[in-house]
Amino acid sequence: MNLILLFDDDFISDRRVRLTGRRHRHIYEIHKPVLGETLKVGLLNGKMGQGVVTGISDETVDMAVVLDYDPPQPLEATLMIAMHRPIVLKRVLYTAAMMGVKKIIVFHSYRVEKSFWNSSLLKNEEWKDQLILGLEQACDTVMPEVIFQRKFKPFFEDEVPSLIRGTTALVAHPGGKLFCPSTLSVPLTIAVGPEGGFIDYEVDLLKKIGFMPIGLGPRILRVETAVPVLLGGILCGNFIGH
Amino acid sequence: MNLILLFDDDFISDRRVRLTGRRHRHIYEIHKPVLGETLKVGLLNGKMGQGVVTGISDETVDMAVVLDYDPPQPLEATLMIAMHRPIVLKRVLYTAAMMGVKKIIVFHSYRVEKSFWNSSLLKNEEWKDQLILGLEQACDTVMPEVIFQRKFKPFFEDEVPSLIRGTTALVAHPGGKLFCPSTLSVPLTIAVGPEGGFIDYEVDLLKKIGFMPIGLGPRILRVETAVPVLLGGILCGNFIGH
Repeated sequence: MNLILLFDDDFISDRRVRLTGRRHRHIYEIHKPVLGETLKVGLLNGKMGQGVVTGISDETVDMAVVLDYDPPQPLEATLMIAMHRPIVLKRVLYTAAMMGVKKIIVFHSYRVEKSFWNSSLLKNEEWKDQLILGLEQACDTVMPEVIFQRKFKPFFEDEVPSLIRGTTALVAHPGGKLFCPSTLSVPLTIAVGPEGGFIDYEVDLLKKIGFMPIGLGPRILRVETAVPVLLGGILCGNFIGH
Repeated sequence: MNLILLFDDDFISDRRVRLTGRRHRHIYEIHKPVLGETLKVGLLNGKMGQGVVTGISDETVDMAVVLDYDPPQPLEATLMIAMHRPIVLKRVLYTAAMMGVKKIIVFHSYRVEKSFWNSSLLKNEEWKDQLILGLEQACDTVMPEVIFQRKFKPFFEDEVPSLIRGTTALVAHPGGKLFCPSTLSVPLTIAVGPEGGFIDYEVDLLKKIGFMPIGLGPRILRVETAVPVLLGGILCGNFIGH
């Protein structure tokens, strides 16, 4: 937690917050602040700044906060990822939020086990926790939008063409052209299939609507690694279009 | 396990292997092969090929193997990473092995907790398991060399200058020049500090012996993400020097 993320209902007055629960515990046990110490804070979907600790007890931390600068610019990429096992999807959502992705689409695909759609990660909206943890790690306040799409064909045929308009759309696929980010223009749309890969019909449909298949070399990477490799390609900002 | 990694003592004759334990369980429970089915295999530090299942029981799998092609080329990067918490170091070793790094140096640094050096990961050489798992995921056979260095100053002053000779040496450091892999020549040496970062003295020493500080953008990435971003930059092969 490099940033303490604040929510509207933390405010007990205009510039004062009172934190309990997870954030209190973290501050109390890890930061162990003395009164007057400052911590980096940010308001969800708002500005960032500093919080001065004005009170700390076994159950609450009070801070006087000044929010005076903007969060970092979004990463210029949309991530489209097939539904995965909950443990994997958790890590991918965390990573995407940490890296600054602001739009994440989780879609069904032929090789996705249907049971993945019934996990508690989705039912109880636990996936939102991963985004918050990712923002707190990164020092960012802007919550990514996450869209779940359970119908592959109508979604890709009817909605994706307009979603990817004006972006460089890439689909990670073995045997595709090697991923050379310096030759691509941002913003990117990156599609990543399920653990067993896309079936031919799916890749053909993606190609038809404008996705370029790209490979990541001779080795088979786990999705948790492929995602930062793909997104990391545009961190440097040295792109066509910049 | 995209590749079944074979060891010399699996061979019961010239071209026949018998597998038990973890690999048997994986084949038995996940692949569920019928007799005559082929699986991708590779000999540790040797060639890759196919294994035809010739027998399977509750405790063993027998295969007739043909090893007739080379593993993929190594990734042209050496990873130098500060000692981390065992859970983090495990993931980093796995990831580096999966991505094709063949030399990994784990070093002490001021902000590394001394207790990390006493974990069972090191004592029982459990770290080797992570490398094997990474090779099995990637489909590679060549075991990375891992070197542990518990003395920062003598190591960086006396040994690192010759280690990095002929390579582009980078140290991940906030505020460094943005990481633009397409402008760098391979092979790379990449140094990553501990969770709290290098202290100034350490960065100054690294700079003095030839490391260039590079940043990964405005967000603070976890080391498990920074490593694939840094290594992924050279997957495409479109580099100066190629």
